Amino acid sequence: MARISIIGTGNMGQAIAGVFGKGGHSVQLLGQADAASAVTGDIVVLAVPYGAVASIVAERRDSLAGKIVVDITNPVNFETFDSLVVPADGSAAAEITKLLPESKVVKAFNTTFAGTLAAGVVGPNTTTVLLAGDDADAKSELTGAIAAGGLKVIDAGSLARARELEALGFLQISLAAGEKISWTGGFGVVA
Amino acid sequence: MARISIIGTGNMGQAIAGVFGKGGHSVQLLGQADAASAVTGDIVVLAVPYGAVASIVAERRDSLAGKIVVDITNPVNFETFDSLVVPADGSAAAEITKLLPESKVVKAFNTTFAGTLAAGVVGPNTTTVLLAGDDADAKSELTGAIAAGGLKVIDAGSLARARELEALGFLQISLAAGEKISWTGGFGVVA
Repeated sequence: MARISIIGTGNMGQAIAGVFGKGGHSVQLLGQADAASAVTGDIVVLAVPYGAVASIVAERRDSLAGKIVVDITNPVNFETFDSLVVPADGSAAAEITKLLPESKVVKAFNTTFAGTLAAGVVGPNTTTVLLAGDDADAKSELTGAIAAGGLKVIDAGSLARARELEALGFLQISLAAGEKISWTGGFGVVA
Repeated sequence: MARISIIGTGNMGQAIAGVFGKGGHSVQLLGQADAASAVTGDIVVLAVPYGAVASIVAERRDSLAGKIVVDITNPVNFETFDSLVVPADGSAAAEITKLLPESKVVKAFNTTFAGTLAAGVVGPNTTTVLLAGDDADAKSELTGAIAAGGLKVIDAGSLARARELEALGFLQISLAAGEKISWTGGFGVVA
């Protein structure tokens, strides 16, 4: 059983808590009122908008050292809805890695809408969580923890692949915002 | 009935010819031996590797003016398999648009493996072709022509979205090359 801390109590934080809860893991869910509470998990999910990450990371940097930190963000420029706010050849995950050099950053959950995490399916497909990261052990531990909750997991490669996962997340959000797909649909992964 | 020309007789060219053939369209399939043959279609699909596009476009630029030109490429850097060979904030489609300013360039078919075009399904999902382009009429005509062949089509937006479609195509290829998914699987789109 893994100990998971989730910072952020929005739709995604709650849906991710549900996945880990189904897997029998211990879940600590921290909201804005819990800023003074210590993070107890070995895996810490930053389930907040990208714009809120830097200040949370600044406050909790020391307590995140050595831990698996999961970046779920889609750094969409919500003013233009036409690009991301991170460098074109980089990713939010790469930026967060710079802020947390002593943590093991893994990109995950940014390509799965909250509804598909809760339902466990994207239409006829079992929901698949795509990961990217440079620490194989961290990805392996996270994979086990997610799979225990009934979802599929695919390791998409090094942290560099976060760029493509974020492009996929952006595309999926833009399709849903444009009513081309629903917020309970999106990209299903067929192995 | 639309008149379609497909330049390129590889797996993708043949699979795309099959889709349009099912839709009852007239299909001209042009291989390397047909360099002297005039393009007869109103919709011209460039079904060749990205590295071969520039020379084909240079030879056929005048005959492509005014036509719908479909870019299906995934400009993967096959030496590193870690990035694309186009600018990070751009796309192959944007580069091709620069080469063909008088054509109506539409990105399509780069997120669907040949096997899923031929089968009409990605696992339990009907194969969905994602489009991006700046000419609404061109996208509408192409949508009708593809849908007649039994596939779903989603307009992902302006040509700027080709960047995300190419990231998705690259991710899908890298997952298949890494044996995380099969070449008959990949991303299914659930509306």
